[in-house]
Amino acid sequence: MDAEKHTIAVLVENKFGVLSRVAGLFSARGYNIESLSVGETLDPSVSRMTLVVTGDAFIIEQVLKQLHKLIDVIKVTDLSDEDHVEREMLLLKVNAEPANRAEILRIGDIFRAKVVDVTPGTYTLEATGEESKIEAIIELLRPFGIHEVVRTGKVAIARGPKTRLRKVEEKLGKPREVVRPPEDPKVVGFAD
Amino acid sequence: MDAEKHTIAVLVENKFGVLSRVAGLFSARGYNIESLSVGETLDPSVSRMTLVVTGDAFIIEQVLKQLHKLIDVIKVTDLSDEDHVEREMLLLKVNAEPANRAEILRIGDIFRAKVVDVTPGTYTLEATGEESKIEAIIELLRPFGIHEVVRTGKVAIARGPKTRLRKVEEKLGKPREVVRPPEDPKVVGFAD
Repeated sequence: MDAEKHTIAVLVENKFGVLSRVAGLFSARGYNIESLSVGETLDPSVSRMTLVVTGDAFIIEQVLKQLHKLIDVIKVTDLSDEDHVEREMLLLKVNAEPANRAEILRIGDIFRAKVVDVTPGTYTLEATGEESKIEAIIELLRPFGIHEVVRTGKVAIARGPKTRLRKVEEKLGKPREVVRPPEDPKVVGFAD
Repeated sequence: MDAEKHTIAVLVENKFGVLSRVAGLFSARGYNIESLSVGETLDPSVSRMTLVVTGDAFIIEQVLKQLHKLIDVIKVTDLSDEDHVEREMLLLKVNAEPANRAEILRIGDIFRAKVVDVTPGTYTLEATGEESKIEAIIELLRPFGIHEVVRTGKVAIARGPKTRLRKVEEKLGKPREVVRPPEDPKVVGFAD
């Protein structure tokens, strides 16, 4: 079977030990968690984990079933099965010699990155986007001398509305037209 | 002793099992990891974890010492001890009734959020910033009906240059002027 990349969303009770138990289920099978993010949800007692794991679909499915059985796991979704938005955030500290500053800012502008810290010799940039975009900005800034790179790991959210209405329509067998913009539309923010 | 919030950066070998061992060290002591992000660094064989843990400073220090002893741990830094930039990313899917759309976009603009998915009934927004900013945007959008919230967990990077030059100057006892902008400066990006 082919190894595929799976993006898995897990809702868990925000209790100690849950994280290591979830991570342990994967590592016990020799699976490396490539990326992981854990954050609060609307309900502070519930956290949402997003994991990226590469593996054989059959075995991943078994791991997901075992995840379901963990007492503090509320819900497990393999987002790879559905259309979803996947993004990560990057903080990057780069050498900013006076001669290079304009070019670094130009690259930042193109990638819609924000400068979050400035010192006489460095810029710290923040960028968000898909993995390929994050990797492109790192590659472009690498020649200037990168001091530090911090990435959040991916977070993902299913596309589409997922409202009761949609489910009713699906039951009735009437497919709903989902208007999707051709390319990630973005609202231009104001300068602070 | 007082429980304090600690933001800890851990560089680890990107091997399976490391994550669950690191998380296990905290949970074995009854410490809940409030937020965690793991992502690649410039070297794909090395990952960087950012953990937020609340606890007694003395015990946290002991845990950090034990972290150091783990074979796949390369470096541990308690960023709470130094000036640092801390940020997280939010993906939020909100009900967007026609009557509310303009107001939702206005709130998004003020927080420099991007719309990353649109359906006839929902908007999915992406926002980045400190915890307080992320919580403010969630609170403002809550009345419209939030479907889903995904947060990355915090990532942090030390402020300042941290170059060899700086260290040399510190040795010579000559403090270096670090120009810091009054408020998070941001470069306005172009629309895509």
